[in-house]
Amino acid sequence: MTTSSFPAIYLIGSATTKFGELWDRDLRSLGLEAAQKALLDAKMQASHIDSLYVANMLSSRFSGQDHLGALFADQIQINAPSTHVEAACASGGVAIRQAWLELLSGQSQTIMVLGVEKMTDVSSAEASAGLSGASDEEWEAYYGVTFPSLYAMIAQNHMQLYGTTKAHLAACAVKNHFNACMNPNAHFRRIITMETAIKSQSIAEPLGLLDCSPISDGAAAIILSTKIKSPIELLTSQQSQDSLALHDRQDISSLAATKKAAQKAFQATNLTPQDIHFAEVHDCFTIAELLALEDLGFVSPGQSGPFVASGHTKLDGQLPINPSGGLKAVGHPVGATGIKQAAEIRDQLLHRAGERQVHIPSKKQFALTHNVGGSGATAVVSIWSHQT
Amino acid sequence: MTTSSFPAIYLIGSATTKFGELWDRDLRSLGLEAAQKALLDAKMQASHIDSLYVANMLSSRFSGQDHLGALFADQIQINAPSTHVEAACASGGVAIRQAWLELLSGQSQTIMVLGVEKMTDVSSAEASAGLSGASDEEWEAYYGVTFPSLYAMIAQNHMQLYGTTKAHLAACAVKNHFNACMNPNAHFRRIITMETAIKSQSIAEPLGLLDCSPISDGAAAIILSTKIKSPIELLTSQQSQDSLALHDRQDISSLAATKKAAQKAFQATNLTPQDIHFAEVHDCFTIAELLALEDLGFVSPGQSGPFVASGHTKLDGQLPINPSGGLKAVGHPVGATGIKQAAEIRDQLLHRAGERQVHIPSKKQFALTHNVGGSGATAVVSIWSHQT
Repeated sequence: MTTSSFPAIYLIGSATTKFGELWDRDLRSLGLEAAQKALLDAKMQASHIDSLYVANMLSSRFSGQDHLGALFADQIQINAPSTHVEAACASGGVAIRQAWLELLSGQSQTIMVLGVEKMTDVSSAEASAGLSGASDEEWEAYYGVTFPSLYAMIAQNHMQLYGTTKAHLAACAVKNHFNACMNPNAHFRRIITMETAIKSQSIAEPLGLLDCSPISDGAAAIILSTKIKSPIELLTSQQSQDSLALHDRQDISSLAATKKAAQKAFQATNLTPQDIHFAEVHDCFTIAELLALEDLGFVSPGQSGPFVASGHTKLDGQLPINPSGGLKAVGHPVGATGIKQAAEIRDQLLHRAGERQVHIPSKKQFALTHNVGGSGATAVVSIWSHQT
Repeated sequence: MTTSSFPAIYLIGSATTKFGELWDRDLRSLGLEAAQKALLDAKMQASHIDSLYVANMLSSRFSGQDHLGALFADQIQINAPSTHVEAACASGGVAIRQAWLELLSGQSQTIMVLGVEKMTDVSSAEASAGLSGASDEEWEAYYGVTFPSLYAMIAQNHMQLYGTTKAHLAACAVKNHFNACMNPNAHFRRIITMETAIKSQSIAEPLGLLDCSPISDGAAAIILSTKIKSPIELLTSQQSQDSLALHDRQDISSLAATKKAAQKAFQATNLTPQDIHFAEVHDCFTIAELLALEDLGFVSPGQSGPFVASGHTKLDGQLPINPSGGLKAVGHPVGATGIKQAAEIRDQLLHRAGERQVHIPSKKQFALTHNVGGSGATAVVSIWSHQT
């Protein structure tokens, strides 16, 4: 499926720590745990890693620690180039793309991608202020805009344009909480009802508390290789951009960066959205999951609400979305999120996802990960395959 | 000189803003200025750029702005993937290596690498605290270690081991200030004498004020391409790591990361240190310039002091080092530093460096850039050539 001149890239190991408010854990121990578990999963030593990417957004501000590439190379005992990349909440996705590029360059054969974030050592207000660095600080955050309010504007627009309802939004949250109950690493492991979701405390109309992903600590790591084979391949990893500020866009009924990244990813693999069996998408807010379904081409514009409400995105639906439980219920330790998505793909494709295992009928299976930064200024779409 | 299976990579444009305490300038305008000037220098439009890398260390902490890839893609009007990379003071060098990898992967043909830092909107104490994020926050900075003190320990060790003197250190500062007088973008443009340098206020013995690079604002940008030709080629860009904390190293008389990166760079290009005509090296402190001369293989261990004192590294010496004026006198806006080094290489190799032009005798000319993060946890060495 990859272009013949390029080497196949295998996903040979993955691991995720517990996500949540982990007050007894620091940045360093979380990152190290994910890295060591991923090495164990790949049955390899740190000395086999040719290059390390570390995805993180807020360690400089929250922990006073920069230079995370060097920190984790040191901790994990990886004696190889190590690079910290950041693209707000898409840091993990962007780090996977950097590893993909380096493997395609032929300069490295086995790369670890580690995502980590420690967010609960600061107050909620400081966490919110930190996260607003993902938006345009000067032209959005300075005037009081927060992420719930940005996505609330997107949701209002979608409701007016397509008749999307609060029940459609709630259906995403209910499904993701249900899935997360079967994910031992999830931040939230409790079932919520449609009624609780719809009536949850208003944060920024129409978004209530249960439409928002939480502030979490956590880490995840994957290992990609052109040298060591595995049934799971990373077929492509495509990134696109849009304006940083929401007010600079012509249309906020969709995320243009997601659409463009998806187009490029499908083009690179000669696949269509219909070929994808399941996906992990960026549901920082419930409305973001609805947009993702439309922007990735799974349903037509305006159809995502009814599609989710009909149960098609449940574990046993025609297109399981966020079998892990998504950002909504697994949690959203920013730098770790994009890597956790890939780890979930591996667990599912290896049929080791336990109670939340999705059923995949065909022999050749395809899955997709979708990671967004800010209100859609950065999007990364990666496509993965499994050959039984 | 590049391996036959890889495309040649050309340095087709470059620009540097004024470096200094630029109180009337912000992060955004500095980055935009460097990017636009680099586009002008390359005679191209932003729409021709396939990918953008942004090197920056402290914007999250000092400006409340993360997601700099998206910010600058937006500002420059580059409609392409954009990625922020950070490796403390080696951020610029690491960003060049990422661009090099992406060009080798064949996924992009023309890439802009932008480095930018705005450091003077915070107090000196906050700037120092921010910079200490390049060291091990938990095991160094927390106990009061600052960068002058880390490099002072390295200098003490070098003095005891090799008889290096304060006059040797001062010779680096005097030369770099002299060169910077002829660099219109330099932070400091005044000649200093050996006496002033040796007697400057003690910061951390044996380092005085004039042994330290300043805290500066500034930006620099380069454009690399496999599609558009130029006489200047990036032959290789190699990165290496060492422990984050200085106390975790067996030997502090040299930086192992520099040695390893240099070894890899010379091996990749089939060159030796003797082939290099001039270099821009990482002189965050004068002792760092001495270490660089030894670690890059230009002189034997312990010989750097006498070598500099003999004038061999002056503009008209046998091996001009830091013709720009170095970090010491041009200034050190962290993310911009590694990119400014490459811009200086281009100015010199195109014989457009004005009064500070170095004389290059042979037809095929080679130059080297060397960028260090922290007290040597990250090092990047790139080699550039010019075919007349």
